[in-house]
Amino acid sequence: MARTKADPGKRDRILTAAMKVFARKGFASARVSDVAREAGVADGTIYLYFASKDAILISIFEEGMQGVIDGLVKGLKGIDDPRERLRFFCKYHLTTVENDPDLAEVLLIELRFSDKFLSEYKPQVMLDRYLEQLAGIISEGQRRGIFKREIPTGIAMGVVFGSLDEISLHRVLQRKKRAEPTFDITAVADHVANMLIGGLAA
Amino acid sequence: MARTKADPGKRDRILTAAMKVFARKGFASARVSDVAREAGVADGTIYLYFASKDAILISIFEEGMQGVIDGLVKGLKGIDDPRERLRFFCKYHLTTVENDPDLAEVLLIELRFSDKFLSEYKPQVMLDRYLEQLAGIISEGQRRGIFKREIPTGIAMGVVFGSLDEISLHRVLQRKKRAEPTFDITAVADHVANMLIGGLAA
Repeated sequence: MARTKADPGKRDRILTAAMKVFARKGFASARVSDVAREAGVADGTIYLYFASKDAILISIFEEGMQGVIDGLVKGLKGIDDPRERLRFFCKYHLTTVENDPDLAEVLLIELRFSDKFLSEYKPQVMLDRYLEQLAGIISEGQRRGIFKREIPTGIAMGVVFGSLDEISLHRVLQRKKRAEPTFDITAVADHVANMLIGGLAA
Repeated sequence: MARTKADPGKRDRILTAAMKVFARKGFASARVSDVAREAGVADGTIYLYFASKDAILISIFEEGMQGVIDGLVKGLKGIDDPRERLRFFCKYHLTTVENDPDLAEVLLIELRFSDKFLSEYKPQVMLDRYLEQLAGIISEGQRRGIFKREIPTGIAMGVVFGSLDEISLHRVLQRKKRAEPTFDITAVADHVANMLIGGLAA
């Protein structure tokens, strides 16, 4: 079959279906035929768009992260105060996890727990582009004397990202167990942001 | 062979050897015979002490965590101020990762990336006993009015543990790449503790 027949709508449908299937069954146990069934296409159709199951996961990751980064950059545009920029970063991170559960599960669990991706594929490039935004917020706050200059930016980033990642992972695992969240995510984000801003405030 | 021949020294030697082998080769690729060779015992001897490779990993985890918790409880004993107790917790967590690299790698990487353990074995019991110590430090600080009462203890715990875990994981991965750490671990722990104590301070 000719590649020129490629239909972007169908490609997106396959990616959305794959996210659902990987989130539900786990990447390791999911088969390309499960993805085809969920997307309502023939097994062979998948291979018009993706070379392998791995290639589907990489596309979900890269395109998902690209969307996340674009939304973050757009949201930060109108905010000047580094404290409010950091608060927005926390809210954006946690609401993305909350509102896009299939993507969150693939990014936070399947990709992380896949040894394969740690050695052969480098997710670091996209993650670094996301973290660059956080680095910019912190270093600008330090430059302006609003955030403590004595805390190395890299360590402050580890504290912020580690906090958000831990709370996100907890949230995703709770959802897998179908447990009701104890707090509204906006309230959680505000508490986390208050604690982090308080810790960084000069 | 009779179980009564069991030799605790030999059992410890097998566990130490297994930690080295799992850290070096990864749990998935490591074989029981690799562990036997590293420990200097015959393959069959391993089975006098452990039913399977999984049982070795569970023992490393449970006994390792028990040692970590005992050291933490002992170290906290002489400290009264909740801020200094939290600082000790940060230092203890990060220096344990630094000083016991094989154990840290098994706890932070092999156990986390092993799907098997997430479903069949529940590492949560030991982790919870570790986290209970942290919960006690934070809630006691809140009770005394030294830490902000408006931050839910569970969220504060997520921020503290997430920060330490992120920085530990970064440290372990750096070491795997044989990269020189940028900061001395005691300095890192102080920066992290300052930020977290600042964020919690009433």
